[in-house]
Amino acid sequence: MVIVMGPEATGEDLASIVTVVQSAGVEAFVSKGVQRTIVGLVGDVTQLDAAALRGMRGVGDVMRVSAPYKLVSRDNHPDRSTVRVGGVPIGPATVTLIAGPCAVETPQQTLEAALMAKAAGATLLRGGAFKPRTSPYAFQGLGEEGLRILADVREETGLPIVTEVVDAQDVELVASYADMLQVGTRNAQNFALLQAVGAAGKPVMLKRGMNATIEEWLMAAEYIAQRGNLDIVLCERGIRTFETATRNTLDVSAVPVAQRLSHLPVIVDPSHSGGRRDLVLPLTRAAIAVGADGVIIDVHPQPELALCDGPQALVDGDLEELAGVLRELPPLLGKAAAATLTG
Amino acid sequence: MVIVMGPEATGEDLASIVTVVQSAGVEAFVSKGVQRTIVGLVGDVTQLDAAALRGMRGVGDVMRVSAPYKLVSRDNHPDRSTVRVGGVPIGPATVTLIAGPCAVETPQQTLEAALMAKAAGATLLRGGAFKPRTSPYAFQGLGEEGLRILADVREETGLPIVTEVVDAQDVELVASYADMLQVGTRNAQNFALLQAVGAAGKPVMLKRGMNATIEEWLMAAEYIAQRGNLDIVLCERGIRTFETATRNTLDVSAVPVAQRLSHLPVIVDPSHSGGRRDLVLPLTRAAIAVGADGVIIDVHPQPELALCDGPQALVDGDLEELAGVLRELPPLLGKAAAATLTG
Amino acid sequence: MVIVMGPEATGEDLASIVTVVQSAGVEAFVSKGVQRTIVGLVGDVTQLDAAALRGMRGVGDVMRVSAPYKLVSRDNHPDRSTVRVGGVPIGPATVTLIAGPCAVETPQQTLEAALMAKAAGATLLRGGAFKPRTSPYAFQGLGEEGLRILADVREETGLPIVTEVVDAQDVELVASYADMLQVGTRNAQNFALLQAVGAAGKPVMLKRGMNATIEEWLMAAEYIAQRGNLDIVLCERGIRTFETATRNTLDVSAVPVAQRLSHLPVIVDPSHSGGRRDLVLPLTRAAIAVGADGVIIDVHPQPELALCDGPQALVDGDLEELAGVLRELPPLLGKAAAATLTG
Amino acid sequence: MVIVMGPEATGEDLASIVTVVQSAGVEAFVSKGVQRTIVGLVGDVTQLDAAALRGMRGVGDVMRVSAPYKLVSRDNHPDRSTVRVGGVPIGPATVTLIAGPCAVETPQQTLEAALMAKAAGATLLRGGAFKPRTSPYAFQGLGEEGLRILADVREETGLPIVTEVVDAQDVELVASYADMLQVGTRNAQNFALLQAVGAAGKPVMLKRGMNATIEEWLMAAEYIAQRGNLDIVLCERGIRTFETATRNTLDVSAVPVAQRLSHLPVIVDPSHSGGRRDLVLPLTRAAIAVGADGVIIDVHPQPELALCDGPQALVDGDLEELAGVLRELPPLLGKAAAATLTG
Repeated sequence: MVIVMGPEATGEDLASIVTVVQSAGVEAFVSKGVQRTIVGLVGDVTQLDAAALRGMRGVGDVMRVSAPYKLVSRDNHPDRSTVRVGGVPIGPATVTLIAGPCAVETPQQTLEAALMAKAAGATLLRGGAFKPRTSPYAFQGLGEEGLRILADVREETGLPIVTEVVDAQDVELVASYADMLQVGTRNAQNFALLQAVGAAGKPVMLKRGMNATIEEWLMAAEYIAQRGNLDIVLCERGIRTFETATRNTLDVSAVPVAQRLSHLPVIVDPSHSGGRRDLVLPLTRAAIAVGADGVIIDVHPQPELALCDGPQALVDGDLEELAGVLRELPPLLGKAAAATLTG
Repeated sequence: MVIVMGPEATGEDLASIVTVVQSAGVEAFVSKGVQRTIVGLVGDVTQLDAAALRGMRGVGDVMRVSAPYKLVSRDNHPDRSTVRVGGVPIGPATVTLIAGPCAVETPQQTLEAALMAKAAGATLLRGGAFKPRTSPYAFQGLGEEGLRILADVREETGLPIVTEVVDAQDVELVASYADMLQVGTRNAQNFALLQAVGAAGKPVMLKRGMNATIEEWLMAAEYIAQRGNLDIVLCERGIRTFETATRNTLDVSAVPVAQRLSHLPVIVDPSHSGGRRDLVLPLTRAAIAVGADGVIIDVHPQPELALCDGPQALVDGDLEELAGVLRELPPLLGKAAAATLTG
Repeated sequence: MVIVMGPEATGEDLASIVTVVQSAGVEAFVSKGVQRTIVGLVGDVTQLDAAALRGMRGVGDVMRVSAPYKLVSRDNHPDRSTVRVGGVPIGPATVTLIAGPCAVETPQQTLEAALMAKAAGATLLRGGAFKPRTSPYAFQGLGEEGLRILADVREETGLPIVTEVVDAQDVELVASYADMLQVGTRNAQNFALLQAVGAAGKPVMLKRGMNATIEEWLMAAEYIAQRGNLDIVLCERGIRTFETATRNTLDVSAVPVAQRLSHLPVIVDPSHSGGRRDLVLPLTRAAIAVGADGVIIDVHPQPELALCDGPQALVDGDLEELAGVLRELPPLLGKAAAATLTG
Repeated sequence: MVIVMGPEATGEDLASIVTVVQSAGVEAFVSKGVQRTIVGLVGDVTQLDAAALRGMRGVGDVMRVSAPYKLVSRDNHPDRSTVRVGGVPIGPATVTLIAGPCAVETPQQTLEAALMAKAAGATLLRGGAFKPRTSPYAFQGLGEEGLRILADVREETGLPIVTEVVDAQDVELVASYADMLQVGTRNAQNFALLQAVGAAGKPVMLKRGMNATIEEWLMAAEYIAQRGNLDIVLCERGIRTFETATRNTLDVSAVPVAQRLSHLPVIVDPSHSGGRRDLVLPLTRAAIAVGADGVIIDVHPQPELALCDGPQALVDGDLEELAGVLRELPPLLGKAAAATLTG
C-alpha cells in the first residue's frame, strides 16, 4: 500500500499517519518529494482500511499494490486449476462445451436440446429451472419440476447438469439435483448466495456481473472460496457499455487477464453476451482463440417458440459448424476438445 | 409494439408474423414501404414476447411502444405518490432528510450520529446492520445486534429507522425492527429479495442498480409492487461510468425522468455516488434543485475511525451548512423540508 | 511517481530501474516489502515516460502522484480565475447565462432568439455557424454568412458572441467575428484545433469530450494554455454512459471536482446533455446549485422548425421560469447573476 | 420511420403530424391502438428530421427503421469489398497483417521494425509521423521528417506505408508520401478531416472512435465516402468502458456486426485496445477467429526505449508466434494470409 500525502499536508498530518500505520504492525517508509510526500507501507496491510486512511487529514490518495483476493489469486497458486464436473474436466488442457436450452420448458424440448448439444460435442448440459427475469411478468422457470426434467435427461444422455440458482434458500434443493451450480450475472454481488454456494459442496460457475470489474469478479469468487470451495469456474458473459448493437459487449480480453490473475478456469458465454444467433459462432471462435477453457451455449430445437432468449439459441444447422470449430480450433492452442477426451 | 421487417423478408414471412400476432388476439396493421414493411400491433400485447418475435424469419427489429411496467407507471396513476415512514412523508410536497451512520458500530456511535442527523434536520435515521461488502474480508455489519441498537436509538430520538436487508431469508427479522427496508444497489436485480420485501408490509427504499437503466430500475420496483406493496421510494445513487474521479457518476437527470415515468417518490444518495466528503454538500444541493423528494446522507461522529465508508461521511462542521441548504432550497421548488412539517 | 515492482522482479531488474531513474536526475527511494518492492521517485519526473517505465522488465505498475497538467492546475494558482468575454465575467463571483439558437438559420430567427435570451437574463449570445453533425446529410451551418448574422445581432442587442469553430483552418475567420471561441465535444482531442484556438487571442469555451475523463479534459485545456491563452472556460455537457433515457448523462459532480483541480471557471450545458426540453430547467437548477459558474442554453423562437436540436430548445413560456431561477438560486451560493452586474 | 404518439396526444396533434409528413412527400399510415397511436411513414424520409418531429406536440417517440448511411451500407452493395493498398488486398479473402512502430523515431529503428514486421508476415508497414497525444508535453512525432523516413524504408523493404494524419491541413502532405491514410480514434468525428481524406485520392483506414457506436463509426465512413472515396477500411481498436484492467475494451463483436451492416473491410488493432504486450497475441487470435480481415500491430526493436506506447509493442521473440498464428488460423475461416498471396 502506498499513501500519497496531499500538497497541503503538514508534518503533523504525516506523523499521525505513521502512528496509525505502525500501530497496525506495518512499517512506514517516508519519501519526501519536491511536490508530494509518499509513504510506502510494508508488512501485513490487510488490517488497514484504505478508505479509512483516505479519510485522514492530509492524505491525497491511497493506492493498493497487491491483490485484495488471496485464495483465488495465482500469486500463491501458479499452476492453473482444473475443475471436474461429474468427471468432465474444465481447465487449461481442454476446451469444454456446455450446451442446452436457456430454460427448461418440457421434457421433450430438454431432451431434444440435450441430444443436439451432445451431437455438437457438448460434455455438459446447461438448462435453467430457476430464471432471473427483468420483468415480473416474464416466464420465471419451472422450479423443482425443471430440475427433475434435467435429472431425467442426464439419465438418458449421460451429460452432467449445470443449472442456475438465484436465491440462497434454494441452494440445497438445486444442489441435490445439479452437478454444477451456476451463479448468474445479476447475482454476482449477492453475497448471501455466494456464501451459500460456497458451502454447498458442488462445483460453481460464476458469471461475471455485467458491471463488474475483473477485480470485483475475483472478489466474488473469493467469497465462494472462503467457504471452502475452490471448484469455481469463471464465466465471462459480456459487460454493459454504451454500444446497443449487441445486448452486451463481450470482453474477450478479460479471459487472458483473469487467467493471469487467478488460477481458476475461465469460460465464455457467447450466447448471452451478443444476444443474437448470428454472433454465436463468431464469438465462440473468438473465445476459444483468446484462450478460454470452454464455452456455454444456448441451443433450442424450436427457438421461435422458446419461452426465454430464443433469438440467441443455435439451431440444428449451426451445430455442425460448431462441432467443426471445436475440432479444429483447440489444437492450435495446445488444447483438446473435452469431448475428445471423454468420448 | 411495432415490428419492422428486414429488407430480405418475403411475403410468406410477413404472413407468418401476422398469423402469430392475430392468434394472440392482437390486431396487425401492415404498412408496406419502399425499403421496409412495418407491422403495427394494436391490442393487449403483453401476451407477445418481443424476443421471440425478433427470432422469427424475416423480422428486422421489434420495438416496444408502451412501458413494460404497470403498477409503478405514472400513465395509470398521474398524481405523484407520498410514502409515509413512521409518519414521516416522502413525496412531492417535501424534501426529506434521511441521515445516519453508514454502518451501526456501537450504541454510542449510533446515538451520536443520530443526534447529529437530527440537528441537521433529519426526520429519518439510516444505519446499516447487514452490510454488503465487495471483500469477504471487510466488516459485514453487526446483524441483529445492530438492529437492536437502531431500535434503542429510535426510542431515544424519535427518529424512525431505515435499514438495509441483503438476503430474502433476513427480511422478516429486519422488518420486525425497521420502519423502512432498504434494498441496495448490488441487489437491484435480486428478484427473490425484491419479492420478499414486497410481501413484508413495510415501506421500501429501492436503490438504483449501479448499472441499471431507468427502465430496469422501474421494473425492479414493479417486482415489489406486484406483491401488493406500493410504498416504494426510488433512490438514485450514481451509476458506473468510465469516470474514476468519483466513485460513481450521480445521474441527476434520472430524478425528473423517473418522476415523469413513475408516480413513486425519488430521492438521492449524494454520499455513496461521489464517495468523497467534499462532494456531499454540492451534490445535495444539486439533488434538491433538480427536484428530488429527499436525500439520504452518511454522518459519523469520527469518520476516520469508521468501519465502512468513513471518507464520505459528513462531520459536525458540515451539518450546519446542510441544515441551511434544507431550509433555503426546498421553498424555491415549492417544497418544504420534512423537518419543518413534522417538527 | 511510484514504481511498484512485480512479484517476479529480480535484484537486477530493480537496479536497472534505479539507474534509468537516476540518469534522468530523479531520486529513487526503494522500499522492500514482504510481497512487493516499491520505488518512490522524487524530483522532476516530467522527463520520465510512465508508459516506457511500465514496459521495463520486472515492473508491475507505475503510478503518477501529481497532476500531468501545470498551467491550468489549481496547485500553482489557488485563486479561481475569472474570464471576461466582451466585458462579461465568467467566474467564481457570478452565474453567467449564455443563450441563443443552436444553429444560426436566418437573421430574424437569430435576432428573435437573442431577444428571448436577453429577456431571460443572458449576457452572452450563443449561436452556431459551423456545425459538426454526425450525419453528412444533416444541416452543417451557414458558415461565414452565419458569422455575419451573429455580428449584426450583437450590434443590435449588445450581446457578445460565443460561437463554435470546428477546424483549425477556420480559426482566424471565426476569431475575426467572435468574442469567444467554442470547441465542441467531438473536437475535445483535436489537438491541432486546440493549439490553433490557443494562439487566436480570444477567450475559449472548451466542452468536455463526451468520453473524456476529467483529467483528459484538463489536459485538453493545457494544450490551449500552452499556446499562451489562459482565458479558458470549461463546459460540462454530459458524458456517454449505458443510459439511453437521456442523450448523455450530465455529470454534475464534474463541476466541483474540476473547480478543485483547476483554477478555470466551469459552466454547464443542460440543453445538449439531456437532449430534452423538459429537462433543461431541472438541470439548470442542478448546475447552479452544484456551483457552476454559468450555463449555456439553447433557445429558439419556433423549435419545431429548427434545423438542429429543436427538441431541446427552450421556448417563450419557459424563459420566465429560467429568469426566476437565475434571480433566486445564485444568491444562495454567494454568487450574483451576471445580468445583475452588467445590467 | 415510425412516429409513436404520446398517451396525451389529441386528434389535432395527430392531424398536424400527418400534414407535415405529407408535405414532405411521404405517406403516413395511422394505426390507432388502445393505448397509443402509431404513424408509419413510407417514402423518402431523408427530408424529415427525426429530432424536429420529436419536438412536435403530442409526439412520444420517433424511431428510424432504416440505416442513416447509404454509400457504405451493405443493403445496396451486398458483396463485401476489397481495398487495395499499393497492391496489397484487404478484404474478405485475406487476413492482412499491418505492422510497424507506433511512432517513427529514427531511420534505423523504423527499418529494424519494418524488417521484424515483414519477417512475421506483414505486407503493409505502419508508423506514425504525426502523433495525437493526450499531453502537450509528450512526443508529438517527427512530422515530415518521419514521412521521409517511412518512404525510405518502403524503398528498402517494398512494404507500402500506412500512416496517420491528424489535421485537415496536413492531408495533402501526408498523402504525397503515404499509400494509406489513417484517421485515429480521437478524430473519428473530426468532420473536416474526414472530408479532406475523402478527397485525397488515397485509401483510408478509419479507426472507431473510442466512444463511437457502430452506427456513428459507419456515419464517419459515410463522410469519407461522400467525397467520392470508397476505399475505406474500418478498424476496431477498443471502446471506453468502466473496466480499467485494459486500456480499452476490444469489442470483437463489432467485427461481424459491422461486416453485416457495411460492405467495407474490417480490421482490428489488438495493440492499442489492450495496451499490454501480453494481450497482443491472444487478441490477435481472437480478431482473426471472429472474422477480421486484418490486424494492425505495434512492433519495436527496443520497446523499453520507445517514445510512444512501448509497453504494447511486440518484440522479436513474439513475432515467430505471430507468424504461426497468421499461417494457421486464416485457413480455418476460409481466408489466406495476405503474405501468402503476395509473397
